[in-house]
Amino acid sequence: MNDRDALTVYATAFVDELAQNQIKDVVISPGSRSTPLALLLAEHPEIKIHINVDERSAAFFALGLAKAMKKPVAMLCTSGTATANYYPAIVEAFYSRIPLIVLTADRPHELRDIGAPQTINQIGLYGNHVKWFVEMALPESSMSMVRYARTVCARAVATAANEPAGPVHLNFPLREPLLPNLAEAKKYRQEKKQAAVAIEPGILTLSMNQLDAIAQEIGQAKRGLIICGDMKNDDIKGAVTELGEKLGFPILADPLSQLRSGQHSFANVIDCYDTFLRDEQVMDAFYPDVILRFGAMPVSKPLLLWLKKQQVENFVIDGGAGFRDPSGLATRMVYSEEERFCQDIVERLPENRDQGWLQRWVRVNEATKHALSSIRNEEELDEGKLFYKLNELMPEHSHLFVGNSMPIRDLDTFFFVNGKNVEIYANRGANGIDGIVSTALGVSTVKEKTVLVIGDLSFFHDMNGLLAGKLQGQNLTILVINNDGGGIFSFLSQASEKEYFEVLFGTPHGLDFSYTAQLYNTTYQKVQNWDEFSEVFTTSFSIPGLKIIEIPTNRESNVLKHRNLWSFVSREIASALNEEIQ
Amino acid sequence: MNDRDALTVYATAFVDELAQNQIKDVVISPGSRSTPLALLLAEHPEIKIHINVDERSAAFFALGLAKAMKKPVAMLCTSGTATANYYPAIVEAFYSRIPLIVLTADRPHELRDIGAPQTINQIGLYGNHVKWFVEMALPESSMSMVRYARTVCARAVATAANEPAGPVHLNFPLREPLLPNLAEAKKYRQEKKQAAVAIEPGILTLSMNQLDAIAQEIGQAKRGLIICGDMKNDDIKGAVTELGEKLGFPILADPLSQLRSGQHSFANVIDCYDTFLRDEQVMDAFYPDVILRFGAMPVSKPLLLWLKKQQVENFVIDGGAGFRDPSGLATRMVYSEEERFCQDIVERLPENRDQGWLQRWVRVNEATKHALSSIRNEEELDEGKLFYKLNELMPEHSHLFVGNSMPIRDLDTFFFVNGKNVEIYANRGANGIDGIVSTALGVSTVKEKTVLVIGDLSFFHDMNGLLAGKLQGQNLTILVINNDGGGIFSFLSQASEKEYFEVLFGTPHGLDFSYTAQLYNTTYQKVQNWDEFSEVFTTSFSIPGLKIIEIPTNRESNVLKHRNLWSFVSREIASALNEEIQ
Repeated sequence: MNDRDALTVYATAFVDELAQNQIKDVVISPGSRSTPLALLLAEHPEIKIHINVDERSAAFFALGLAKAMKKPVAMLCTSGTATANYYPAIVEAFYSRIPLIVLTADRPHELRDIGAPQTINQIGLYGNHVKWFVEMALPESSMSMVRYARTVCARAVATAANEPAGPVHLNFPLREPLLPNLAEAKKYRQEKKQAAVAIEPGILTLSMNQLDAIAQEIGQAKRGLIICGDMKNDDIKGAVTELGEKLGFPILADPLSQLRSGQHSFANVIDCYDTFLRDEQVMDAFYPDVILRFGAMPVSKPLLLWLKKQQVENFVIDGGAGFRDPSGLATRMVYSEEERFCQDIVERLPENRDQGWLQRWVRVNEATKHALSSIRNEEELDEGKLFYKLNELMPEHSHLFVGNSMPIRDLDTFFFVNGKNVEIYANRGANGIDGIVSTALGVSTVKEKTVLVIGDLSFFHDMNGLLAGKLQGQNLTILVINNDGGGIFSFLSQASEKEYFEVLFGTPHGLDFSYTAQLYNTTYQKVQNWDEFSEVFTTSFSIPGLKIIEIPTNRESNVLKHRNLWSFVSREIASALNEEIQ
Repeated sequence: MNDRDALTVYATAFVDELAQNQIKDVVISPGSRSTPLALLLAEHPEIKIHINVDERSAAFFALGLAKAMKKPVAMLCTSGTATANYYPAIVEAFYSRIPLIVLTADRPHELRDIGAPQTINQIGLYGNHVKWFVEMALPESSMSMVRYARTVCARAVATAANEPAGPVHLNFPLREPLLPNLAEAKKYRQEKKQAAVAIEPGILTLSMNQLDAIAQEIGQAKRGLIICGDMKNDDIKGAVTELGEKLGFPILADPLSQLRSGQHSFANVIDCYDTFLRDEQVMDAFYPDVILRFGAMPVSKPLLLWLKKQQVENFVIDGGAGFRDPSGLATRMVYSEEERFCQDIVERLPENRDQGWLQRWVRVNEATKHALSSIRNEEELDEGKLFYKLNELMPEHSHLFVGNSMPIRDLDTFFFVNGKNVEIYANRGANGIDGIVSTALGVSTVKEKTVLVIGDLSFFHDMNGLLAGKLQGQNLTILVINNDGGGIFSFLSQASEKEYFEVLFGTPHGLDFSYTAQLYNTTYQKVQNWDEFSEVFTTSFSIPGLKIIEIPTNRESNVLKHRNLWSFVSREIASALNEEIQ
């Protein structure tokens, strides 16, 4: 066989194996060296390709697809700096445990490190931020090399998906000619629908002895607490709420735990802890004797600070066998798949417990929520009230993506428990402000009724992501909170450095996003008041395509309003606690 | 001393040492963890800070500054994915040998790999694409640690600048409190203007014996050739032209060699080889017996293909001791600083040589240039003619930055030798289409009368870079050649795959860049004809700020026109050669 035939056989086997392993979505950025894979992906009848010119946005778009699909998604780019543009999304995927198959084209060995164009050192390019790196063999058509291409592919998919999920990187050296024989490709696809090697993923569980001991220990606790962060797997929701109810433990539910919305029981779910744990009286009155934590660490900084005061047995249950303990307080790392752990413990617990401890949490939670809800009377456009309004306005079975810095924090404070099945998304692996638009667009490709709430700097950072939305016709409602700069810094100590604050941290840009909307052909409205917001937001779901709704706010008054509200809430909590004592 | 004082002393020493080592420009992206360095940089009276929100653009902006200043520039960002956004520019800097000091803030050791926010593994983050990586010690105020901070800084600057120049990466673990005592900083700056350790960089030279042998060998050649690519150092121009003249060797001058414009002699400079070496008759008639190559490999693909046929002694002179040989034809790698090598050889050569061989090259070059100049009659807007027009229209002492893919190739074909002192810039380390706008903006910060010529996809890729231009008031004339997609692919074999071509390679975007111009508050004009272009272009130099001039072209007709022109030129060359024979 000649080089072209070898390329056709080998690359077709790899691409076909992606499909056999249920990888049906591939995000492609244009380039020359990647041509063989790009053409064969486009030609494969079961694979859907998504074109994205800017590789940084492309990788985040793939991340969003994988988040929404809860399975690996592949992406392909050409050699050179194109590959380096993937790095931010790969890092985010690694820390947020999202499976990605990263395919990069490369020059063959003889063209490396000799000054050839678009040739960089792609070996181990993403360092420790991928779970597996493979420098692929050059294309060959022998049976053993076809088996090799297929098995590496199957292993890559399994490695990416197994917990802790994450990105894998396959680098393809490719020689000219770069055009495979597309007419022949069909011959080398497999008719029978099965993977070259079916890899059965296992899950971590504990032994009977370990479970008995842990169940006994937890069962003896009088003031236990469950804390849930981003858990990714929806199946955990039922199991963890059942565990909480059987134990009489409150469940502090981060928005990304998905426990604040859905069809499960909310009896034990506490959603206002971020506010009431700022209060010293509460902090002192509600001390637990055991803590069970599931998923990533929650967003709430008051929770973190409060936890640091609780020197009690602190279980961190992690089916991905990591070490998620930024509070430095874990006393027990439990490496068991989370749903299985909950079920294993529940069946070992004797009977339902006294609910007194839980009820105290529920009461202060309700009092806090009541006080926070006073924000409904805020007449001006306000970052906190926006999330309060979203409680009302988000439709059933919708999807809410929030940016980092302030949006996720305001969501945490104001987005309360509801039965509307609103799924919450964010990029909390490394908490960057980059790539958010593209990640949300990836989600919106899979999920209906998706809303993105994002600050102006984060929106700016990934405006390029909007091109894919324009070209592919995604439906996404984008709420841009525009306070003309970095709002979060006004809450931090940097704000005291008046002389350098605006230039280094405030960074006002003065961008008029109506032009962004025109550039990408989206609908656009800068709202002036809440009535207008409600109308425009609600209408947006019946308009196809991208809808940008800009909410102008003010950084300085935003800080004041947040602080005033916390003072008010603090007084309300105090009086609620006093009533309880009387 | 407390933590804050230690931070103040240590970080001030480091920042002050940057200034002592003549690093006076630092590009800063906003963030929290980087606060101590950001504040002390802003506060230092000798350091100028440049704010750039998008770290990808920020790093390319720093690259542009360093290119134009021909010395290291520093950049600073916060922890997390912010650092990963630097990667593309770092890779480009590494391969194009541009010195950069990359400063990243990080969480301290105890907050790493435990799920803390904005914390990623920044140890060796940029892999083999930096010359030196240092994980800095935590701030301490002892004399030995102040010396440490200062000497690492001085070493970093020297390492970045020494040939082969390139990026270095210093990662700073920083604990809270993050606010240094600015009022005290002055105390810890050094009054006496000197570096902690003055590092005297050496250059590579050859021994007398080596030089004698090489001079004799070259001196015996009858049909020698000098080829110059990107050389960075202007001082080489005089030395290499003197060498060429003494030897009677033609000098094939890539646009980035800077040999096509300036005050030096043009007697031996050949600027149309990219066109006439496509011609088989020429390829066969002009075979050399020795080749001396300086700088990076030239852009021209016809030159590369022609070189592959020349199995002769092939010297590659490289003061950076690399292996720049994509043609696979080097027979002698000469590790000597280039200017010194030329001088060393010139003084060993007996007398001036017969000019017959040179004159044959000059004649075919002139015939080619005459034929190429027929493009002046092209009435429609055309990508090739644009560069022909720039020959006429670029002002004296101006700076021309060209994008990759087609602009650099059309420049190579149509931008002829001139005495106007037009410096040419491009990102040819990895030849990416990313970050070009920001790199050009970096150049325009230092150099007056800067023009960027860029294709639409490359312009799109780094539109975010325009924000710095808007906020900092840079003057830059941007010519966007808009053929609505990836023009270069129409010249490649991919064009034969009609079914998938537009979706995978053409990638039309339909963006109306007038909105980009409005977003970033630039002047904008889409020109309709050459008269309009000439007027708008010439006027642009008297208008402050960013000026976007859009030149609409057509991908399909562009390929046809290029091919027609090459056929015409080929016939003209043939008749010129025939005349010579007669």
